[in-house]
Amino acid sequence: MPKLTIAQNILAANDTYAAGIRQLLAPRGIRSINFMSSPGAGKTTLLERTIRRLRVKLQIGVIEGDIETSADAERIEAAGASETCQINTRGNCHLEAHMVQAALDQFDLDRVQLLIIENIGNLICPNAWDLGEDLRVVITSTTEGDEKPAKYPQMFADAQVVVINKLDLLPYVDYDLEKVRRQVLALNPHLRIFELSCRTEEGLDGWCEWLENFARGEI
Amino acid sequence: MPKLTIAQNILAANDTYAAGIRQLLAPRGIRSINFMSSPGAGKTTLLERTIRRLRVKLQIGVIEGDIETSADAERIEAAGASETCQINTRGNCHLEAHMVQAALDQFDLDRVQLLIIENIGNLICPNAWDLGEDLRVVITSTTEGDEKPAKYPQMFADAQVVVINKLDLLPYVDYDLEKVRRQVLALNPHLRIFELSCRTEEGLDGWCEWLENFARGEI
Repeated sequence: MPKLTIAQNILAANDTYAAGIRQLLAPRGIRSINFMSSPGAGKTTLLERTIRRLRVKLQIGVIEGDIETSADAERIEAAGASETCQINTRGNCHLEAHMVQAALDQFDLDRVQLLIIENIGNLICPNAWDLGEDLRVVITSTTEGDEKPAKYPQMFADAQVVVINKLDLLPYVDYDLEKVRRQVLALNPHLRIFELSCRTEEGLDGWCEWLENFARGEI
Repeated sequence: MPKLTIAQNILAANDTYAAGIRQLLAPRGIRSINFMSSPGAGKTTLLERTIRRLRVKLQIGVIEGDIETSADAERIEAAGASETCQINTRGNCHLEAHMVQAALDQFDLDRVQLLIIENIGNLICPNAWDLGEDLRVVITSTTEGDEKPAKYPQMFADAQVVVINKLDLLPYVDYDLEKVRRQVLALNPHLRIFELSCRTEEGLDGWCEWLENFARGEI
């Protein structure tokens, strides 16, 4: 069977904007997270559940990347985010740092202790764009197939945290959790893995506790 | 809540290659399909099941787009595709027509009646690239959430067929099938919708019958 390899075009760097975002957030003690996943892995639902649990303890600002709709930002606002901004990319498949900067210009940063950026649902392109974040979280789910880390390795290799969502569906799908753990740790031995179900809320306590510690600079 | 809109950069056209592919395939009576979906919707499994059912009646050539691995192409070859070629894009998030042309150069086209191109798992970028195909099929699944057509409208608007996969998981997820049907038909009233489960094989008969008729030029 023949195999062809086509080299990737490296897109223009946006490091200047990303550095500017770090210079804006760090002195204020605001820590930031870039949430990435394929469409439907559960980014918005995880955010919603997380904000509902932490909003009494932590002011969470959210930037919602979406191609067209503002449905997710409305869900996040209703969940109790302290500041929210919707970015519609009109077809662009990833967020870029200048978009995040423009969203932050709309925020009252005194009302933000933790910034979460929900990227466009895409397991490939967002990885190439530094948004000035302190931490990258990749969400994957038990219904996507257990070979996804091997097939989309770069996103897992460059993240610090992996969330495996939809644990409640494990009895109904062919998904080898142990294989996924092995794959992601082979790509990146320092990855922190959380396994949870946004639907049943199993595993959410541990995730929220860790996130609160991260936001407070204790991790 | 503030909203920002960032204009899309239109990528370079690859229409010349796509037209060349049509000129190559049409006189030989080879019909072609571009299979697109988010990661994990079930493109490869659907292809595998389809080829196993149709291989005695139809010679199916498959071009497998993948970022890194050749695992999918091996599955497809084992299922009985008459010709197979793996394209590894090394990080590129979509196939382009020149890649398809390079893959077709490796094929014995006398052994192909139907060409299926499995695009990279991505619900956004592949849509912008004409691969010279006759038909676009988008696969979505019941575990991805029932708002996906509204959130990623362009891919559904430009397709001719939508396959809703993982019907067997419907009892375990919050997914409103009727809402999805309404969304896709609002985007594109001429869409043909197939609802099936690759796991239980429910609905595969109708899909395969339709595909065979398409391959024979009867649709």
